[in-house]
Parts: sequence; structure tokens; C-alpha cells
Amino acid sequence: MIITVKKGYRIEHVADILKKISDLGGKAEVVNGHEQITISILGKTEKIQVTEFQSFAQIEYVFRVSKPFKLAEKRDQLQHSTVRVKGVEFSSENFIIMAGPCSVESEDQTLRIARAVKKAGANVLRGGVFKPRSSPYSFQGLGLEGLKILALAAKETGMPIISEAMSERDLNMMMDYVDIIQIGARNMQNFSFLKVLGTTNKPVLLKRGPSATIEEWLMSAEYILSGGNSQVMLCERGIRSFDSQYSRNVLDLGAVPILKSLTHLPVIVDPSHGTGYRNLVAPMALAGMASGADAIIVEVHDRPHEALSDGPQALLPSDFSELMVKVRKLATVMDRKLIAESVKPVAS
Amino acid sequence: MIITVKKGYRIEHVADILKKISDLGGKAEVVNGHEQITISILGKTEKIQVTEFQSFAQIEYVFRVSKPFKLAEKRDQLQHSTVRVKGVEFSSENFIIMAGPCSVESEDQTLRIARAVKKAGANVLRGGVFKPRSSPYSFQGLGLEGLKILALAAKETGMPIISEAMSERDLNMMMDYVDIIQIGARNMQNFSFLKVLGTTNKPVLLKRGPSATIEEWLMSAEYILSGGNSQVMLCERGIRSFDSQYSRNVLDLGAVPILKSLTHLPVIVDPSHGTGYRNLVAPMALAGMASGADAIIVEVHDRPHEALSDGPQALLPSDFSELMVKVRKLATVMDRKLIAESVKPVAS
Amino acid sequence: MIITVKKGYRIEHVADILKKISDLGGKAEVVNGHEQITISILGKTEKIQVTEFQSFAQIEYVFRVSKPFKLAEKRDQLQHSTVRVKGVEFSSENFIIMAGPCSVESEDQTLRIARAVKKAGANVLRGGVFKPRSSPYSFQGLGLEGLKILALAAKETGMPIISEAMSERDLNMMMDYVDIIQIGARNMQNFSFLKVLGTTNKPVLLKRGPSATIEEWLMSAEYILSGGNSQVMLCERGIRSFDSQYSRNVLDLGAVPILKSLTHLPVIVDPSHGTGYRNLVAPMALAGMASGADAIIVEVHDRPHEALSDGPQALLPSDFSELMVKVRKLATVMDRKLIAESVKPVAS
Amino acid sequence: MIITVKKGYRIEHVADILKKISDLGGKAEVVNGHEQITISILGKTEKIQVTEFQSFAQIEYVFRVSKPFKLAEKRDQLQHSTVRVKGVEFSSENFIIMAGPCSVESEDQTLRIARAVKKAGANVLRGGVFKPRSSPYSFQGLGLEGLKILALAAKETGMPIISEAMSERDLNMMMDYVDIIQIGARNMQNFSFLKVLGTTNKPVLLKRGPSATIEEWLMSAEYILSGGNSQVMLCERGIRSFDSQYSRNVLDLGAVPILKSLTHLPVIVDPSHGTGYRNLVAPMALAGMASGADAIIVEVHDRPHEALSDGPQALLPSDFSELMVKVRKLATVMDRKLIAESVKPVAS
Repeated sequence: MIITVKKGYRIEHVADILKKISDLGGKAEVVNGHEQITISILGKTEKIQVTEFQSFAQIEYVFRVSKPFKLAEKRDQLQHSTVRVKGVEFSSENFIIMAGPCSVESEDQTLRIARAVKKAGANVLRGGVFKPRSSPYSFQGLGLEGLKILALAAKETGMPIISEAMSERDLNMMMDYVDIIQIGARNMQNFSFLKVLGTTNKPVLLKRGPSATIEEWLMSAEYILSGGNSQVMLCERGIRSFDSQYSRNVLDLGAVPILKSLTHLPVIVDPSHGTGYRNLVAPMALAGMASGADAIIVEVHDRPHEALSDGPQALLPSDFSELMVKVRKLATVMDRKLIAESVKPVAS
Repeated sequence: MIITVKKGYRIEHVADILKKISDLGGKAEVVNGHEQITISILGKTEKIQVTEFQSFAQIEYVFRVSKPFKLAEKRDQLQHSTVRVKGVEFSSENFIIMAGPCSVESEDQTLRIARAVKKAGANVLRGGVFKPRSSPYSFQGLGLEGLKILALAAKETGMPIISEAMSERDLNMMMDYVDIIQIGARNMQNFSFLKVLGTTNKPVLLKRGPSATIEEWLMSAEYILSGGNSQVMLCERGIRSFDSQYSRNVLDLGAVPILKSLTHLPVIVDPSHGTGYRNLVAPMALAGMASGADAIIVEVHDRPHEALSDGPQALLPSDFSELMVKVRKLATVMDRKLIAESVKPVAS
Repeated sequence: MIITVKKGYRIEHVADILKKISDLGGKAEVVNGHEQITISILGKTEKIQVTEFQSFAQIEYVFRVSKPFKLAEKRDQLQHSTVRVKGVEFSSENFIIMAGPCSVESEDQTLRIARAVKKAGANVLRGGVFKPRSSPYSFQGLGLEGLKILALAAKETGMPIISEAMSERDLNMMMDYVDIIQIGARNMQNFSFLKVLGTTNKPVLLKRGPSATIEEWLMSAEYILSGGNSQVMLCERGIRSFDSQYSRNVLDLGAVPILKSLTHLPVIVDPSHGTGYRNLVAPMALAGMASGADAIIVEVHDRPHEALSDGPQALLPSDFSELMVKVRKLATVMDRKLIAESVKPVAS
Repeated sequence: MIITVKKGYRIEHVADILKKISDLGGKAEVVNGHEQITISILGKTEKIQVTEFQSFAQIEYVFRVSKPFKLAEKRDQLQHSTVRVKGVEFSSENFIIMAGPCSVESEDQTLRIARAVKKAGANVLRGGVFKPRSSPYSFQGLGLEGLKILALAAKETGMPIISEAMSERDLNMMMDYVDIIQIGARNMQNFSFLKVLGTTNKPVLLKRGPSATIEEWLMSAEYILSGGNSQVMLCERGIRSFDSQYSRNVLDLGAVPILKSLTHLPVIVDPSHGTGYRNLVAPMALAGMASGADAIIVEVHDRPHEALSDGPQALLPSDFSELMVKVRKLATVMDRKLIAESVKPVAS
């Protein structure tokens, strides 16, 4: 961390700053230039915030040099974490496909869709039972009943399950039924909940908040990691922009190579929420893969008119199968392995 | 709600749409124009989402005409709710000033600042004990110890207390100590928590999320209102923009007259978080008042260098007293009453 | 400007950087710390861009310390430029009101509205004759015919005229008719045109681009100033945000105190384009004034249904008169002088 | 276009609205529902703006149903325009690569880079001679001298030239030297200039403004098309977001499939300006191609430290060659043809 002091400073003001650095546990090195004093803070500066110094009138600028996310940060460019869930490995060598309905609506609906996505090559089944809806009057999810349906689908298809938790209460209910806990965009900075997640041993897929910076997102991952849970994955799901006429969000695929250079955690793309419209999902799934993502998570529904949530963005099973054909070709270009048992045809 | 059907439609597709409307409990009225079919949905459409229809390929557009926030919506332009807290009335006739430190740091610090803001004319004391920090390594608040300090300050100064809750656990702890529960920007769409807040009888100040639309914000208020708690106030605290070089957020004061025209709930402005820098706080507090707000909430600290959070945006007690001089003058221009007992000079 | 070099650097790489600084005309001062090398660039760094160094792999960070807008920058907090136009002084002591129709539509319409705003207390008449419209099929303005109408209105009311130029061709036509050249938001970074404006001696009101940062805006002013034209004023007119349901733009009033602290140029607020809806204009005009602006520019139309552009945001003359009553009261609170001859009642 | 009238309307207000529609050349169809009046406007509504009606107090909502960009709009999903430039065809079947330095700096630099990109497989040479720089003190381009250098490079390599024009003056100078006129993001809504471009017969690459909506962008294309120039191509180059710490812009690749469904014009991606950092360019070039773009435009420099503009985002010739290897493989997956003579190895 580097501090520059305004011209015309007084020695006692510099002494105040040095005292503050010492109080915060830092070690200061003062550089007395011709026109300007520069103070470098050495040591474990990730626990020192830039804002600690902003109230000193004599300070001109404070710059952070080291990254504030020590556990999420890559130590070298070859460091990549692997998250393993019932035989599915999220890593920088594989390409994993998660698919399923937005909401679990009934046993019949969930099993139908689970079979279809499994057959087309999906590795993990997604399905929401606790739904974050903008309106209190919208369908809020089936809760425990939905979890039991997901367990049936897991048993039949052999796929691990990913589903969203919105609170500690949901989480407790889900522990026996769900393999990956999804944290939605609106809870990305629900810090109390992130602390609870840090104490579990479940893999967590942390979606990016609709206006979260890359650094804020990594700091939220840091909350979970610093609690002791090392199985965190990051999911880009679209950011909020000034234009929502033709797309619900702007899928920020540039975040993929940025994250791959900053962190060792797996990076996932959600082209369904990232766009909000069916016809955009397949192009953006492929684009996400080409940008370097380790996995995609896609919504599929065989009767979108009847879907209780997000029907417009659901791929039909036939669209999903077509997408999988291109995914297989693109995997070769990108040097990624698809998981074999999933992609070989299953007898219907 | 109005639906337009694409040219070249087939009758059976229109029949599908009419069935969906009926399934959702709506009443359809079909208008057969020369070139286009238009369907109006009548009845209680606030429970019907625009998205329910987006998966019908034959539908061109779906427009909502009525507002989806029935309880928060103004029935007529003269409807204004009043929230009363220990003799302090948030209403469209008064102008209320809430002030205090960002964080409760110690008994001495809190009492010093509480006395100073009381003397200058504040009506409600603010102070955080559960702190939403981007970094897990930053100061997280004093918790219960902080609540006890706030209770002491309330007793000595007679001011009611506002403080932030981040979880149900915090909320339970706060019920005996705090008069207004603040919900921070990052929890505005923590729907599980909003539902819990709906079951309490405490006034809630709901801050706007950093990228929440006006409608999403009112829908979050609707979560609390529909749970049975009618004492909700809305607080504009700055939105995220493309430029954070000179201001942490963009304080969206246009939201004030918009909200005053849409909802009967009191509207409050936070110029401290809305800007992030001390020198911008007073101009934006006055601008907030001129835009029609019912109250402001301002951070004050007498030793900002030592503040454990947000020092750069804290007014000094002397700055706050100067601001209050202008607030008094502006109150006359805006036809607002300041609460008498607070503003009369208190002997030091 | 300060450069930090990555750990594990090689001396020859530091030498490359020093050569580049020297090539750019800067003077380098190297500070060799325990863990890190820091290089300060002294001298006229406003001509050196941060980006010049970003391609050196060995450089970790480049920070600019001095401001890149030398001519627009305040040398001390008391420096305020005054722009004088036919007896109207834009300064930090006055408060100036510019008003008139969005577009000049006819002689009758313009004279009617000019008389009405003059009577209510306006100091400068606004009216567009070259219109920047998103659609090529919309009304594009009356051009020269409109300029002649403005000249008539100026002659009758004595008010100076402000009108928008979109190109050098427009500008040449306007020189004899218009007193202040307005540059619209969409041309804020039309650098070729800004250079031309720098060579004229006309006052220029430079509107902020819809997504321009404060610094980009000041750099655009710098283009005009560095060409030799010192009469530049800055006008905040709303920025683009993620929510346009109830407001066309977000009026960024925080920009007013920021600009007043960074630059000596007069700062103006446009609450009409800043919101886009009539009912928001008066609250935001007052809020703009309370935030510290030196002037406002407001659209007024007596028959908004017939307006050829922006009818929804035009105040009626009666609304404008009511606003002026509050403006007068607020001027006292803000220690601003209104120009006497305008505000005294004119016999109708 | 559909208008809904507020409950409690009076017949004379509806009559006013009908008169306005008639004045604008539209044909109204009134639908008298139980609770609400709806008016449909039939006929050529692209010349009627939604805003024309917003000043009627009795109107509740105005919705546009048809698209306002008649010439840019696709008539059917198979309509794709082709732009031909000296044997290079921008179409939905080919994939075109434009590459070269950000700025033309010298004959030697330009020829060196031109040869390198030609050899690696580029089809069109890019190079700026009129540079839009935020600072008036930055390098502004070589102007006419640069155009002559580009002509030499074109002659030697056989590649057509694309270069940016910032004004009518630039354009006139460029007509004999340049094959495709690039309009930069900051001039996307320089309507006076767009009109001039409409009168030429040169292909135009129209970059998206940093905060332009898809519809505004297409309306700017419509300005050129409606002037008589049908050779317009659209280039996504990144939009402005709330986070610029690790990327200069957010490359909105979702815009690619959106545009391909709305318009017949070719769609191009600029991963260099879209990200601003070298290490992000190749992943985003591939992602752009996977999203369905018809071409990419990439900055290449062999001595980025010495580049007079945008060094940090320039690929080295070796990076560009590596990217081209993947582009060739991806072209097969995407069913796109690369232009044969360019991609076959050229003897060095």
C-alpha cells in the first residue's frame, strides 16, 4: 500500500499517519522526494483498508498494490483448484454441463426434464426449490417437497444436484439432499450467510451480484474460504446495464479470462439468466465456453408455457441436445474433456 | 395488463393464451383489430407477472398497466403514511434528522457523538453494531456490547435508536435495544429476511440496493408490508454508476419526487453513503431536502482518523452544526416543521 | 505520477522504463525500498498518460497524482471564473435562470413563451433550431429560420440567447444570432468540433455526455480552453442508469459540489433533460440550486401537446412562475443574488 | 403503437388524442373495454415517436409495437446483407479478420505490422490517422501523412484499409485512401456527421457508443441508410460499466445474437477496445466468433512499449498468429469460411 502526502505537509501530520500505520500492524517506509513524500506500507496489508487513511486531510492518495483476497488469489498462473462432487470434477481440464428446470414444479416435471438433460449429456442436475422472486405474490418454490423430488431425480439419473439456498434455514434443510449449494446474485453480499457457508463442507457456487465488481465478488468468496470451506466456484450470470430491451442482463464474458488470471477457483457461466431469452442462450453458452469457462449452467424446460418461473429463457430439450452437439465440437478446439459416461448416448 | 399477438397468428394459439390467463385467475377481453389482436387482462393483475407470457411464441408484447406494488402504492396524491417512533413522527409535514457514528466503537465515543448531534438538533441516533463489510478481515461491529452502548446513549439523550440488522439472529438480539431496524443496500433483496421483518412490529428503514430499480425497491417494501408490518420507510443511499473517482456512489435524488408520487411511505436520503466524501455531504443533504425528502440520515464522528469504518464520509460535529443552521432555513422554504424540542439550544 | 515495479524485476527493465519517461519529457526519481521499487515522475506530467506505461510487463501499477486538466483545474478554492453575456454574469455569487422551449417551432410560439419566461424572471432564452434526434424521421429543427425567430425574441425581451450547435456548419450560421453555444451530451467527445469551438470567442455551455466521467468531461472542457476560448460552462443534464422506467436519466447532483471543488468554471444544472418528466423538474431544479449550482436551464412550453420535441418534460408557464417563487426564497438561503431587473414584476 | 387511457377519462380528452394521431398521419382504432379505453395506431408508425403522446395527462401508457428502424430491420430471418470491399465479403457465411496497429506512427512501423498480420491471415488492414483522444495533449494522429502510409501498405499487401474519420473534413481527405470508414464510439450519435456519411458510397463500420442501447445504435445506422448509403456494418466494442479495474469496458457479446435477429447488417466484434488488456483479447475474440459475429477487428503492434496509443491492448504478431490458429479451428465449428488466399501460408 502506498500513500502520497500533499505538498506543504507538516512533520507532525506525517507522524500521525505513521502512528496509524503502526496501530494497524503495518510497517512504514518513508521516501522523501524533492517535491513529495511517499510512504510505503509493508507486511500483511490485506487486512488494512484503503479507507482507513482517507480521513487524513494531509494525504493526497492511497493506492493498494497487493490484492485483498489472499485465499482466492492465484499464487501462480498454473494454480487451479478442483471441486469434486460425486465423481464430477470441476477443473481447468474438463468442461462440465449443469442443466435442468428453473423451478422444481412436480415429480413428473422434474423427472421428465432430468432424464432429457442426462440423455443429452448433462453432468449435474439443477432445479430451484427456494426461489428468490422480486414479487411476494409470485411462486416461492416447493421447499422440502421439492428437495425430495430432487433426491428422486438424483437417484434415478445418478447426477449430483445443485440448488439455491436463500437462508440458513434453507441450508439446514438442504444438507441431506443437495450436492452443490447455489448462492444467488441477490445474496452475494449477504455477509452473515456467507459466514455460515464458510462453516459447512458443501461445495458452493457463488453467483455474481448484478452490479458487483470483480473484486467485491472475490471478497465474497474470501468470506466463505476464510471460514474454512475451500470448495467455492464463481458463476457469471449477467450484470445490470442501461439496456434491458432485448436482454435481461449483459453477460460479462470478459470476467471469465479476468477471473482465470486472478483466482484458482473454477469459473462457470450461466447463459440463461445472463440473457433471459431462449434464442440467446445457445450462442452465449458457446461464447462462454470459448472465453475459457470451466462449466455452464443452463435452464431447460419441456413445457415452457407452463413453467412457474423463467419460462422465456428455458431451452427446450431439443434445443439443449443441439447445443450439446456444438459443445462437443468446441471442447476439442478448447482442449477440454467432457465427462465420458454422460456424453455417450443413453437408451431411451 | 395488455398482450399483443403477432400478425399471422392462429386461433388455437390465441386459445392457449386465453387458457393461461384463466389459469392465472385473470379475466380476458379480446380486441380484434384490423391488423392485430390485443388482449386485455382485467382483475387483480398484481399477482400476474409479465414473464408468465413471455414463452408464448405467438405473443409480440406484454405490457403491465397497473402497478405490481398494491400495498406500497398511493391511492391518491394526498395519501402519506406517518411512522411514529417514541415521539418522533416521520411524515410529509415534518423534517427529521438522524445522525451519529457509522459504527459504535466504544461507550465513550458513542456518548460523545450522541451528545454532540443531539445538541445540534438531531432527532434520532444512528450507530452500527453489525457491519456489512466487503472484506471478512475488516471490523465487523461490536454486536451485543454495541447494543448496550446504544441503550445508554438513548437513555441519556432521549433519542430513539436506528441500527442495521443483517440477519434474523441480529434482529432477535436488537428487539429490546433498537427503535428502527435499518436494512442495508446489500440486503434489499434478501427475500427470506424481508419476510421475517414483515412479521415484526418494528419500523423498518429499507435502503435501496446499489443497482435496484424503483420498482424492485417498492416490491421489496411490499414483501414487508404484505407480511403485516406497515411501518416501512425508504432510504435512497446512492446507486452504482460508471464513475467512482470522486464519489463512491451517485445519489439519485430524482428518486425522491418519483417515490413521493408513487408511494405513501416516508422517503429518506442518506448523503453520507450516497457520496462517500465529507465535503459532499452537506450540499447533498440540502439538495435531498430540496428534492422533497422527509428526513436525512447523516454520519458524524468527532475523530474521523480513528473511526473503525467510513471515516472519510463522517461530518465533524462542527460541520454538522453548520449544516443544521442551513437545514433550519431551508425547512421554512420547503414548508417543513423541525421537531421543536430537538432544535432549541441545549446548554452544554 | 507514480510507478511501482513488480517484485523480481531485472535492472534492464527498470532502465527501459526510465528511458520511456525521459522520451516523454519527464524526470524520474527512483526509490529503492526493501521489497519494491517505486518511481516518481516529476515535472509536467499532465501531458503524460497513465496508459503510456501499461504495456511494460514489469510495471505493477501506475498512479496519476496530479490532475490532467491543467486549465480547467482550480488553483485555489476561491478561484471562480465569471462568464459575462450581455449583462448576465454567470458567477459563484449570482444565480442565473435560462428558460424557453425545447425547439423553436414558430415565431408566434417562441415569442409567446419568451415573454412568459421573461415575465416570470428568466435571464436567458433557450430554444433549439438544430435538434439532435435519435431518429432520422423526427423533427430536425428549423435551422436558419429558427435563428431569425430567436433574434426577434432577443430583440423584444432583451434576453441573450442560448442554442445548440451540432456541427461547424451550424456554428458558422449561429455566430450572429446566438450568445451562448450549447454543446449537447452526444457531442461532448466530438473532439474535432471541440477544437473548432476553442478557436471562437463565444461562450460555450458544455453538457455532460450520458456516460461521461467527471474527468472525461473536464478533459473535453480542456480541449476548448486549450484552443484559446476561456468562456466554458459545464452543464449536468443527467446520466444514463439501469432504470429508466420513471425517469429518462439520473440527474447526478453530486457532480455539482465535486465540480465546484475541482474547477473554476461555472456549473449549471438541467433538470428538464435530467429527468424527462414535468412533475420532476421543479423539485430537481431546487435540489440543483441547493447542491450549489450557479444556474439552471429549464424547458417551458405553453402547449406541450403540440410541442415538436420533448413535450412531456416542459413546464407550463404557470409551473415555471411557481418554481421561480421558490427559487427566490432559496436564493436567500444559498446566499445567491438573482439578477434584479429580471425578477421584478413586469406589467402584463 | 398502442395507447391506454386512464380510468375516469372524459370524452373530449380522447378526442384530443385522436386529433393528435390524425395530425401525425396515423390512423386510430379505439377499443372500448369495460374498464379501460385502448387506442391502436395503425399505418406507418415508425415516424411517430412514443414521446409525442407523453404530455397528455389523460394517457396512461404508450407502447411501440413495431420497430422504429425500418431500413435496418430484417424482413425475415434469412435476410443478411453482404458488404463487399475489394474482394473481401462481409457476410453471414464468411468470417473476416481485420488487424493492424491502433495508430499509424511511421511508414516503417505500419509496413512491418501490415506484413505480419497479412502473413498470419488478416484480410483487412486497420490503422488510425485521426485519433479521438480524451486529452488534447495526447498524440492526435498523423493525418494526411498517415493516409499516404496506409496507401503504401495497401499496395504492398493487397489488403483493403479501414480507418476512423472524426469529421467531414477527415472524411473528404480519406475518400481516395481508405476503403471502409470507421465511425468511433464517441461519434455514434454525431447526427450531423451521420447524415454526411449517408450521402457517400463508402462502406461504414459504425461502432456502438459506450452507453448506447441496441435501439439507439440501430437508429444511428438508420441515419446513414436513410441517406442512401446501404453499406453499413455494426461493431460492438464494449460498453461502459461500473467496474473498470480489470477491463476498460464490458464487451457485450449478447448484442451479437440480438443484432443478428433484428437486423440484416453485418455484425463485428472489437475485442481490443472491448477489454483494453492484451491478455483478454484472444479469449474474447474467440468468444465473439462463437457468439455469431461475422468479423473481428484486432489491434496488433510489434513494439507495444513504443506505441503512441493503446499499447496495453495490442497483441504481439506472435499472439495474433496463435489466435489465428484457433480462429481457423473455430471457423469449422461455426460453419464459417475464412478467405482462402489470406489464410494460406505466405513465404516470409
